[in-house]
Amino acid sequence: MLKRKLLVIGIGAGNPDHVTIEAVEAMNRASVFFIPDKGDEKTELASLRRTILERFMRHDSYRIVPFSVPKRNRSDAYERDVDEWHAAIEEMHETLIAHELGEDETGAFLVWGDPMLYDSTLRIIDRIAAGGKIALDYAVIPGITSLQVLAARHRIVLNAIGRPVTITTGRRLAEDLPGSAGSVAVMLDGQNAYGDVDEDMDIWWGAYLGMPDEILVSGRLADVADEIREKRESARRDKGWIMDSYILKRRERDDPG
Amino acid sequence: MLKRKLLVIGIGAGNPDHVTIEAVEAMNRASVFFIPDKGDEKTELASLRRTILERFMRHDSYRIVPFSVPKRNRSDAYERDVDEWHAAIEEMHETLIAHELGEDETGAFLVWGDPMLYDSTLRIIDRIAAGGKIALDYAVIPGITSLQVLAARHRIVLNAIGRPVTITTGRRLAEDLPGSAGSVAVMLDGQNAYGDVDEDMDIWWGAYLGMPDEILVSGRLADVADEIREKRESARRDKGWIMDSYILKRRERDDPG
Repeated sequence: MLKRKLLVIGIGAGNPDHVTIEAVEAMNRASVFFIPDKGDEKTELASLRRTILERFMRHDSYRIVPFSVPKRNRSDAYERDVDEWHAAIEEMHETLIAHELGEDETGAFLVWGDPMLYDSTLRIIDRIAAGGKIALDYAVIPGITSLQVLAARHRIVLNAIGRPVTITTGRRLAEDLPGSAGSVAVMLDGQNAYGDVDEDMDIWWGAYLGMPDEILVSGRLADVADEIREKRESARRDKGWIMDSYILKRRERDDPG
Repeated sequence: MLKRKLLVIGIGAGNPDHVTIEAVEAMNRASVFFIPDKGDEKTELASLRRTILERFMRHDSYRIVPFSVPKRNRSDAYERDVDEWHAAIEEMHETLIAHELGEDETGAFLVWGDPMLYDSTLRIIDRIAAGGKIALDYAVIPGITSLQVLAARHRIVLNAIGRPVTITTGRRLAEDLPGSAGSVAVMLDGQNAYGDVDEDMDIWWGAYLGMPDEILVSGRLADVADEIREKRESARRDKGWIMDSYILKRRERDDPG
């Protein structure tokens, strides 16, 4: 059985300049791009994928195969919802690849940020490959995550010297913060979880990182939490969507000011 | 007072293809590159920085200013050693910038991986800027870290679904592992700290990631720890240096096999 070739390419946090040379070369090896165009994804982000292709493809012999992402159920059972959601999109992806990608072709998924962090594409492809119905040969190209752009724009180092960093979600922040010995970076926070933190910390927050509408706020959490909440809500209202992340560090006791 | 412009550019984990378009554009705005050429840095890595410049610079009107990095004292007091080491290189950098970078020029530091993670360049520049002896205007460009290349080469997602990830050092692993609720990624482990982990975990290890001598090993920690130690020691002996990192995840109780 011939193996269909798939590339899972990290394309950065929203600014086409985040793309690596390796990602550009990988894109140019592909002839079929699977691009979500309905469902969860915001229109502005969907069109950005096409902008990236138009900018970096050196040949015209490729086609875009749009697909709709099934909606995730949002009950209280987060992990079960995600499992069921993955099963639905696994089946959809399997059908998509079998029907739309020739056995001698190379297909590609363009993933925001890095496929290694809070993205389901690799798990889906892994399960399809393990399922054995279609033979897949796939490779992964890393990309710049929004946390990296956040740290760069604030010009900070994530870790205190020799100390650990915990990356977590808004949902888990209350659970993961007390055990964390160093810095905490939070992605996927739709609930303003930073507002419930009652430790004395500094925060570096950013939205639409690397994009024209980028917003940055930093300072002592107790001082800037309201400002972040207001800017966050106002931007989400104006644009219809928001992608943001932040870094928290405990203030040292002898920290002046 | 005119502000000297500095760029702190992440250049990825050792493969020039990891460089982003943003990093290439940033390099081309600089006319002075400060490159460490003695001291701690391995010769192969030092020459890689020059290879990257030769490949990506579109003009010849730049110069390379080599400098020697002071050695870090290696006593039992790790944080004090690092503090003293930073003070020494801060002074050296201040002198270097004052003498070698004109007030109308843009200088650049090329940092392995991403300046946000276990790198001292930003702290040094921050302290120089705060010191006020020379006025600096600086920006940071994120780069692909070795952890990202590691995850990509093993084709894995760092986090379990909705779960946190802790990034730490070999030195801190014994301390940070028990509290970590999800995956642990370890950088800067010169002591084979994975060998002291007695929990049932899976490991994904890699050395010289993205480079021609890349080595990858993965499996159940108890099964592959010896293989990793042997490959690690043998490669370090042969090449004279090693850069490696790994990811640990607890095995699920119902995990088959």
